[in-house]
Amino acid sequence: MKKFVNDPKQYVPEMLKGIALANPDTLRYVPAYNLIMRADAPRQDKVSIIQGSGSGHEPAHVMTVGKGMLDGACPGDVFAAPPMDYVYETVKLLASDKGVLLLVNNYTGDKMAFDMAQELSEADGINVKTLFINDDVAVEDSTWTVGRRGVAGNFFVMKAVGAAAEAGADLDEVIRVGEKVNSVTRTMGIALTACTPPAKGSPLFELGDDEVEMGVGIHGEPGRRRAKLTSADEIVDELLSAVVGDLPYAAGDKVALMINGLGGTPISELYLLYGSAHEKLAAMGIEVTRSYVGEYCTSLEMAGASLTLVRLDDEIDALLAAPAEVAYRVF
Amino acid sequence: MKKFVNDPKQYVPEMLKGIALANPDTLRYVPAYNLIMRADAPRQDKVSIIQGSGSGHEPAHVMTVGKGMLDGACPGDVFAAPPMDYVYETVKLLASDKGVLLLVNNYTGDKMAFDMAQELSEADGINVKTLFINDDVAVEDSTWTVGRRGVAGNFFVMKAVGAAAEAGADLDEVIRVGEKVNSVTRTMGIALTACTPPAKGSPLFELGDDEVEMGVGIHGEPGRRRAKLTSADEIVDELLSAVVGDLPYAAGDKVALMINGLGGTPISELYLLYGSAHEKLAAMGIEVTRSYVGEYCTSLEMAGASLTLVRLDDEIDALLAAPAEVAYRVF
Repeated sequence: MKKFVNDPKQYVPEMLKGIALANPDTLRYVPAYNLIMRADAPRQDKVSIIQGSGSGHEPAHVMTVGKGMLDGACPGDVFAAPPMDYVYETVKLLASDKGVLLLVNNYTGDKMAFDMAQELSEADGINVKTLFINDDVAVEDSTWTVGRRGVAGNFFVMKAVGAAAEAGADLDEVIRVGEKVNSVTRTMGIALTACTPPAKGSPLFELGDDEVEMGVGIHGEPGRRRAKLTSADEIVDELLSAVVGDLPYAAGDKVALMINGLGGTPISELYLLYGSAHEKLAAMGIEVTRSYVGEYCTSLEMAGASLTLVRLDDEIDALLAAPAEVAYRVF
Repeated sequence: MKKFVNDPKQYVPEMLKGIALANPDTLRYVPAYNLIMRADAPRQDKVSIIQGSGSGHEPAHVMTVGKGMLDGACPGDVFAAPPMDYVYETVKLLASDKGVLLLVNNYTGDKMAFDMAQELSEADGINVKTLFINDDVAVEDSTWTVGRRGVAGNFFVMKAVGAAAEAGADLDEVIRVGEKVNSVTRTMGIALTACTPPAKGSPLFELGDDEVEMGVGIHGEPGRRRAKLTSADEIVDELLSAVVGDLPYAAGDKVALMINGLGGTPISELYLLYGSAHEKLAAMGIEVTRSYVGEYCTSLEMAGASLTLVRLDDEIDALLAAPAEVAYRVF
């Protein structure tokens, strides 16, 4: 295992400490619950938005806490759901008069932790609701889920509910917006390599030198098939066919196109994929009017990428265009 | 070689096409010279800023073209200086009444191409000057350079001259600012793995399973020594010792701290390194007041990182804080 790590058990806390030190004015770190929260949260004039999930998917979700995005994220260890009490304590810390929204990517472990935390919080009189994200078209059920998985498309739901909450929408309206974005968002990914969780010390799965996992999950879960590595254009064809055909997206649609890196793939390759996908969509009559290229939801150092489409209307476009400020930035 | 690629010879043009398609309103792509330029360039009321260098270092430099940063970047192929005529034609396209500044990371191939292009442009009556960047403390001369190499600290020079030019400074003033920032910027990097240029198809160098290259260059050039992989904290100690001792930075200084990923290292590890470095600097009495964590200057999919310090004063701090808009962004 070749990683920048001290004690593997301290991998997540040491990362979180780094995030906090790099953002002293805007973020607060609560070590007891792996919690990164906005320094100005909770605000009683806006819905609080919380996401948990496992670590290892950065920038999701601890680096997307900030104005116009999440109010807090309380991840578990690498690829592990947060313990129920992390979520419960986070909800109590971020409780707002306007309510609390829990964003949950659809994995069994996360659902259990968030369900229990919601129940306990409601017993405390907190107005809290949950929104599930399930954009991954690769498989119906999987090793980690009942139903479809939530993957990189999660970014668009976060962005939309974050913008709506910042604008003062009430909890029902924020949920309406989030469900709407989730309903028009579809993703599929491909892995070129596995990745190595620090505490495990060995790769999550084995792939031959010429093999890829088509439809891979963000924890290295199996996708649709093990295949030989082909050209970038052929890979884009297969990803687009699965994603476009699922909603389906159709000629005349305006869409956001995201090429998300899984961690180990350089951004040059992501832009190469983007150019290919953009032109193929144009040939289908689908116009890309918003572009997202980079790392949004990763699997540690896995080489690979996912392709996400969001069908846009004026409402969604405006929410995605709203300003936001997070730790994950260039300047 | 496991990469998203079609014809390896088209790797750079296909990436550039993707950048242009993703930024139709703000950028223009001139395929003949691998040129990505601002759609509103040249502006006769500001100094034009151009950087070339090889490809494979993205986001440097084709993804940092935009308002408050570069006016254009005309890279060569992967890890190859641009041909002289790319630079010359780019200078002619971006010629401004206020002059043209060429930013050159100090590599022999780049220097030759930019020197010749400057000479030809001057013969055409264009006011053009060159600023060299050489922030890498690892080695004095190297396989690719006479004198120190320019690496990730290049970002701070770009940012500062970009801000000064945007504010209307004349060419001499822009150069003064850039040289000032370069003079207080120091970097050293470490590689955990090699990388594979698409057209080569095999790794640039060999590293044992437990080995690192301390002081590596951004083209995989040798650094100070081949060493055994140690803990993240010990690595930070060695990088800081080299960087801090070089300027030297001293107790009482305020600095910007950049942890730059070399391409294959996940951002979680970069924040872990950041936290360690921030605390060690604080213990030396050096206060980090600006933080930069992510990929700024990469070597394809190389696993590794570099650490950069910039000594801040009010002038440099204001230039780094100025707004900028580039292709490499989250939203």
